[in-house]
Amino acid sequence: MTLSVGVIGGGQLARMMIPPAVELGLELKILAETPGSSAALAATAVGDYRDRDAVLAFAETVDVVTFDHEHVPGELLRELVARGVAVRPGPDALLYAQDKLLMRARLAELGIPVPEWAAVASLTELDAFLESHGGRGVVKTPRGGYDGKGVRVVASASEVADWFDDDQPLLVEELVEFRRELSQVLARRPSGELALWPVVESIQRDGVCAEVIAPAPGSAGAIADVAADIATSIAENLGVTGVLAVELFETTDDRLLVNELAMRPHNSGHWTIDGSTTSQFEQHLRAVLDLPLGATGCREPWSVMVNVLGGVALDKFDHRFALAMADQPTVKLHFYGKEPRPGRKVGHVTAGGDVLDDVVFRARAAAAFFED
Amino acid sequence: MTLSVGVIGGGQLARMMIPPAVELGLELKILAETPGSSAALAATAVGDYRDRDAVLAFAETVDVVTFDHEHVPGELLRELVARGVAVRPGPDALLYAQDKLLMRARLAELGIPVPEWAAVASLTELDAFLESHGGRGVVKTPRGGYDGKGVRVVASASEVADWFDDDQPLLVEELVEFRRELSQVLARRPSGELALWPVVESIQRDGVCAEVIAPAPGSAGAIADVAADIATSIAENLGVTGVLAVELFETTDDRLLVNELAMRPHNSGHWTIDGSTTSQFEQHLRAVLDLPLGATGCREPWSVMVNVLGGVALDKFDHRFALAMADQPTVKLHFYGKEPRPGRKVGHVTAGGDVLDDVVFRARAAAAFFED
Repeated sequence: MTLSVGVIGGGQLARMMIPPAVELGLELKILAETPGSSAALAATAVGDYRDRDAVLAFAETVDVVTFDHEHVPGELLRELVARGVAVRPGPDALLYAQDKLLMRARLAELGIPVPEWAAVASLTELDAFLESHGGRGVVKTPRGGYDGKGVRVVASASEVADWFDDDQPLLVEELVEFRRELSQVLARRPSGELALWPVVESIQRDGVCAEVIAPAPGSAGAIADVAADIATSIAENLGVTGVLAVELFETTDDRLLVNELAMRPHNSGHWTIDGSTTSQFEQHLRAVLDLPLGATGCREPWSVMVNVLGGVALDKFDHRFALAMADQPTVKLHFYGKEPRPGRKVGHVTAGGDVLDDVVFRARAAAAFFED
Repeated sequence: MTLSVGVIGGGQLARMMIPPAVELGLELKILAETPGSSAALAATAVGDYRDRDAVLAFAETVDVVTFDHEHVPGELLRELVARGVAVRPGPDALLYAQDKLLMRARLAELGIPVPEWAAVASLTELDAFLESHGGRGVVKTPRGGYDGKGVRVVASASEVADWFDDDQPLLVEELVEFRRELSQVLARRPSGELALWPVVESIQRDGVCAEVIAPAPGSAGAIADVAADIATSIAENLGVTGVLAVELFETTDDRLLVNELAMRPHNSGHWTIDGSTTSQFEQHLRAVLDLPLGATGCREPWSVMVNVLGGVALDKFDHRFALAMADQPTVKLHFYGKEPRPGRKVGHVTAGGDVLDDVVFRARAAAAFFED
């Protein structure tokens, strides 16, 4: 019979699971927050991911439940598991993508390299950490941070005084001196099989991923091996199923430190749709269904993905769309069905080829048509 | 605003337009024959393509109307055009894909090489043709033939006596001595821009396409040029918009003769989903919207597509699906949401790579899991 996957959340990650589900002949069901969600085409239910009844009813209609985001409450996921629903990744793994303090503690326990960090419950504790780390640090709210929100670089505890308004401690980390940011994406299925894409370079602007270069330039050899080892260790020790993205700092003194985890398809893996034999979205579906994983080789020596942070006015969009197609016939355009607004991630473009400079140029040229 | 394409017919060709529509952020609407059609996910209306009211109402909801098949009556399409609906391909072009006699007459008029043929209205006329062409011929019903149905190789008019039961003449053609069958697929947009994929070899079994090798082995140079010239001439002279597939015989005396035309994505172009920068389904959407066409280069030196003529029992399907994935992690699996039955085309697989024998082996190995 037809295998079915249920996705909680109707954002662009759920949307990008539609093409591989259609291609493989899988049934995809999506519990979307709103009727006009990015993944509306496959939205079979509309409801809040915190609504116990909505989630339980949705879960009964599918073979396995997975996620567009990491915000479904752990207690609700545990109830699903107790009722015999296959939840992938499971709540015990997802916990570490939901709570940055738990993640830091667990990774430290596993001996995985992370920035120096502390849980601080007061202004005094935070100032003490800053003082012993060169006078600056990165403060993060343990839960709910996303794309630079809930993250602040500070030189004094007073700059996040408003974040101490409940009893939850904050996470503070040293300000890592890094050369660049990398990301190691992999998929793991319940049976243990694991497949990694090459480590990529992720270029951030204003705290948001702007571009990804795959593979990360100069990463062959030691860097790739260390990134793969770190991500594999995390996936296996935390029991991750589905896609795992491990964001890493490559420090100026040649270490790799784990920055963030995401247990779902990730922006740093969007290049795989066009650039790898198996996309992260197809692989996520395979992995959560415990099906054998697909090959993760690169289809071209270089792939470059550039996010479209849509600034172009809606009435100019169609014209720019045609201009981008005419100007860059080799570039793959991806849009998420979201209304363009300056700074809003409404799509991405991917170019591929043999010469990195040329690939970067073509991807940026296509994306530029949507900038304003 | 969002560009929208309406597809009449909910079969696998409409289904395979869903992934590129999702990726490009286009709105796809489908008028499907039944609720459980292959393209059910994007089916926005259910109705008969011969039902004037259903088709007119559907057409009003989209920017352009196109097709999953060639069976929509010409008079209905002309009414749509008269009402200002963009219909692509238009009825004047589509006519030649709907009626094989008109097609043969028009191609002959254009000087495009075709097998020797005649319109025969009686047993006597047919026998006369057979007698003057070595005693054998291929008889085709001018309308409604598909995948070997409505086509019969005969040595005597009496073998198709039942086909003469109305006033329509039949098409009879010489039995061409061919080395192999080729297919030239292209796309053309209303503004005139045209893009061709390389000519491919199409291997038929029992009158149905079984495998496609892209590009056709040994086709570089003259064969590719002639195939491209023939298809370009047909597209331009007939005013085709969208994807056009021209099926060709490569004769034992080194000529290329046109066998059939299809004015829609075609089985011989399925390899482009995985093997070309732009798939025939994405290109069809671009072309009918009069958007600039995408690059049609090969992503790998060889691509091989094998159709899955599903003989495996439904209760074994999921297991075979997993076995095929485990055995051939580089092969892309495509299923159409159709219940497997022996001989029924329920999907296809595509492999790619540098060494043709290896690519053929992998594609066949994956497809074989679904044979019985």
